[in-house]
Amino acid sequence: MSKERLYLFDTTLRDGAQTAGIEFSLEEKISVTALLEELGVDYIEGGYPGANVVDTAFFEHKRTRAATFTAFGMTKRSGRSVGNDPGVQAILNSHADAACFVAKAWDKQVEVALEITPEQNLHNLRETVLAGVACGKQVLVDCEHFFDGYKANAAYALAFVRTALDAGARWIVLCDTNGGTMPAEIEAIVGDVLKVAPGDRLGIHAHDDTGQAVANSLAAVRAGVRQIQGTLNGIGERCGNANLVTLIPTLMLKPGFADRFEIGVTHEQLGRLTSVSRTFDELLNRAPARQAPYVGASAFATKAGIHASALAKDFTTYEHIPPELVGNERSIMVSQQAGRSNLLTALKRHGIVLAKDDPRLEKLLRVVKERESRGYSYDGADASFVLLAHQVLGTLPDFFDVESYRTSVERRHNARGEQITVTEAVVKIRVGGQRLMSVAEGNGPVNALDLALRKDLGKYSDSIGDLELVDFKVRILDGGTGAITRVLVESRDGSGERWYTIGVSPNIIDASFEALYESITYKLMKTEARTAA
Amino acid sequence: MSKERLYLFDTTLRDGAQTAGIEFSLEEKISVTALLEELGVDYIEGGYPGANVVDTAFFEHKRTRAATFTAFGMTKRSGRSVGNDPGVQAILNSHADAACFVAKAWDKQVEVALEITPEQNLHNLRETVLAGVACGKQVLVDCEHFFDGYKANAAYALAFVRTALDAGARWIVLCDTNGGTMPAEIEAIVGDVLKVAPGDRLGIHAHDDTGQAVANSLAAVRAGVRQIQGTLNGIGERCGNANLVTLIPTLMLKPGFADRFEIGVTHEQLGRLTSVSRTFDELLNRAPARQAPYVGASAFATKAGIHASALAKDFTTYEHIPPELVGNERSIMVSQQAGRSNLLTALKRHGIVLAKDDPRLEKLLRVVKERESRGYSYDGADASFVLLAHQVLGTLPDFFDVESYRTSVERRHNARGEQITVTEAVVKIRVGGQRLMSVAEGNGPVNALDLALRKDLGKYSDSIGDLELVDFKVRILDGGTGAITRVLVESRDGSGERWYTIGVSPNIIDASFEALYESITYKLMKTEARTAA
Repeated sequence: MSKERLYLFDTTLRDGAQTAGIEFSLEEKISVTALLEELGVDYIEGGYPGANVVDTAFFEHKRTRAATFTAFGMTKRSGRSVGNDPGVQAILNSHADAACFVAKAWDKQVEVALEITPEQNLHNLRETVLAGVACGKQVLVDCEHFFDGYKANAAYALAFVRTALDAGARWIVLCDTNGGTMPAEIEAIVGDVLKVAPGDRLGIHAHDDTGQAVANSLAAVRAGVRQIQGTLNGIGERCGNANLVTLIPTLMLKPGFADRFEIGVTHEQLGRLTSVSRTFDELLNRAPARQAPYVGASAFATKAGIHASALAKDFTTYEHIPPELVGNERSIMVSQQAGRSNLLTALKRHGIVLAKDDPRLEKLLRVVKERESRGYSYDGADASFVLLAHQVLGTLPDFFDVESYRTSVERRHNARGEQITVTEAVVKIRVGGQRLMSVAEGNGPVNALDLALRKDLGKYSDSIGDLELVDFKVRILDGGTGAITRVLVESRDGSGERWYTIGVSPNIIDASFEALYESITYKLMKTEARTAA
Repeated sequence: MSKERLYLFDTTLRDGAQTAGIEFSLEEKISVTALLEELGVDYIEGGYPGANVVDTAFFEHKRTRAATFTAFGMTKRSGRSVGNDPGVQAILNSHADAACFVAKAWDKQVEVALEITPEQNLHNLRETVLAGVACGKQVLVDCEHFFDGYKANAAYALAFVRTALDAGARWIVLCDTNGGTMPAEIEAIVGDVLKVAPGDRLGIHAHDDTGQAVANSLAAVRAGVRQIQGTLNGIGERCGNANLVTLIPTLMLKPGFADRFEIGVTHEQLGRLTSVSRTFDELLNRAPARQAPYVGASAFATKAGIHASALAKDFTTYEHIPPELVGNERSIMVSQQAGRSNLLTALKRHGIVLAKDDPRLEKLLRVVKERESRGYSYDGADASFVLLAHQVLGTLPDFFDVESYRTSVERRHNARGEQITVTEAVVKIRVGGQRLMSVAEGNGPVNALDLALRKDLGKYSDSIGDLELVDFKVRILDGGTGAITRVLVESRDGSGERWYTIGVSPNIIDASFEALYESITYKLMKTEARTAA
């Protein structure tokens, strides 16, 4: 039996741009378009030409190779012709292949928000679609408030769909605009819509306000629609849009979908999914969600000892798909329960290959357990784990030694009677035969130590030029100010790689210094290995 | 028509503790239990007594008031009787009201992972359930791998359910252990299970590996199960468990659920949902997810100009529920009205009663918003909020002033060549007309400051004798060592009351000192008010 084709419509650059805190520059829109084409979506909605400078510039050229390049905008306003509506004209005159026009499919909203009659609204819709088709564009219609509108006045919502269809729209997209509809409602209402429109002309646009944007999209597909709108990593207004990064593997791998449908994404492209998702987060300058379905760093991570040993026998027990299908990897966490096979797997992931019976393995295991009992946790601190492994294996280069450091914070009044805080750090190190000492002021003691430590690393100073501390987390184990402090430092360099180092001590400053020191050592190991190679 | 009762089973402290990077101390387990009771869940699964020190200690006392206190563990092993199985005995001898036993419901996994026959597995299940019931515990059975097991061998999976039921288990919980099952499959399989077990004895335990843990839980309820297992904010192994914070409002407010079912959460408790969710993230020392359904800071945020103006006309257009139902707030235009009534409610909770039109209310609102824009967050810092309110209202007593402080940490070699760290703090204060200065050494700079500050408070020294710092959390806002630091201090005194104070500064020491200072001030306010009364 041949499979039915499902189409993916990406709106990262349009609805995704409604996310609080996200704004795309022209360059970023071009980069995201390249990522989306790498993934293989069918439509790329690039924005709203005429609405702002960036979007207008973006549509001055054709920006896609394979995907249908789509412009978004409203249907014409009442009281003017299509030819005199600057919004519609900006879209028709753009380099878009397709035009996606939005209009309200809920009669009450038409009257309240637009202050026109429901009939005028249908007229505006018809005229706009006709003009788009006449201009040679593929036309899509986003039916705003469709599901709420249908519940309030089914006849009007269906008339809206028919009007768009009869005027020649290729796709009629049913939008759950406020994101509050349940999957069962979606399925039932789509069933009704199928009485007036064929499923291969219908799309779904879902929001995540009840955590069900993915389920709602899939429910609509099961009911009959053949286009899904969504965004990369589920960005979007309020709680976000349907996450295409979650939907794509589900459509390609799961029963009820993989056996019935095909999409434009190849299995080779699916293998780049994790990379696309993380690259997009890089571009947004935010840490990827560790627990994201399919692509998160924890999506195939196992902590429990019983689970880990079951996994070693059969991966299907706790993994719903093989992680490599989406370009992700299994990560059995090195933690309390860590056994020898966990350790071998973890070492291998970092390019350290040992034989099963290598006696150093036993020693490393002992050291890891001993350190974990003191409060270290290598679950989230890969770089520190690599350094520890190299240290135990005797393969850690001796880059530099810290002889001593001192940091002080003083809060007092200055000569003008204002309260001021002065923070200072002094670090003394040895690099090769050279003794170097540096002093720095900082916003706080850790910042001052970081600045002092990096101020002069002698021959290694250039190697750490692009090292950047991205985040710094402090956790107090067992509570109280007298307890053990665990510090986790997240670092990044020009290559885009992020790594995590850990420090543990009853003293927060000691713990922070240890994590800083390890971050720099890891960076030097990376750079010097590359230089040597 | 009377509504059917649905039961909520929280596993934050057990399955949630499988999350990469999350580990609960005993104190934290106690705090989370209090949060869960505030929310009104029916069951609290506290952990696995006998498996580790913290869980064993947690079950040495009954820790819940209203919720059923539940211990988790495996059914007895083959080759030993229930009486000789230390795992089962640890549960039966604990202070738990209920025991949740897990066993594999997939015959292949039984043979591969446990290396026993499917019949032995059923025998172990039966014996364990019988022992639990005989011991007076309510017994639940988690059917591990239930859905995959059912697809592979339906007869065995159903025999497993019948065995647990016949032995007297109150609840049989169907687990989608690897999280890969689709909602339609859940619905169909639950339908089959109903042929051998009544829905009011069945539960669902879903994971988010395809982004559908919430949808899968709801699909199971629609099909007939009457218990839902999940966690706060959806923490859990890999991609997490079903998010109770998303499920609760959906069950209470959405068609198909609110009209058919009732849960143990009142609408007043629902109004604290946002606060509970954010307090839990505070406790985990992580930033709340802005896009979280219902409770995220962006969940009711509108950016689009067209949407914002439509919202001004009718809130239902882009909001699927009124945000105040879940204790969240709209964040387009800063709605002074909403802000003011929120503030009145918060003040009232702390015994400060003001008239609606008190001009100081406007001033307090301005101060709170200004401080929140600088990184303060009063969601999880009640005591600091109370102090701020008294300060703005002019009712904060002037207990003592800090003239200056200084702290230093030095790491160096001692005379014997050993590495040592010396930490010291000096604090100068004025109490009444008296100038007092103290010096102390500590494990770290904050500990040293705390000790120095409390060493001599003059006439107030006795009043703070039973003040204890329980926990200390540090969060870096916006990342990097140069960024803003937010410190949250949890304190406790002899009365058992716990309070939270906050400090914000680019300097971690300044921020910590502020939170310490406020904790002492709050304690003095409590004690002196009692003395005066």
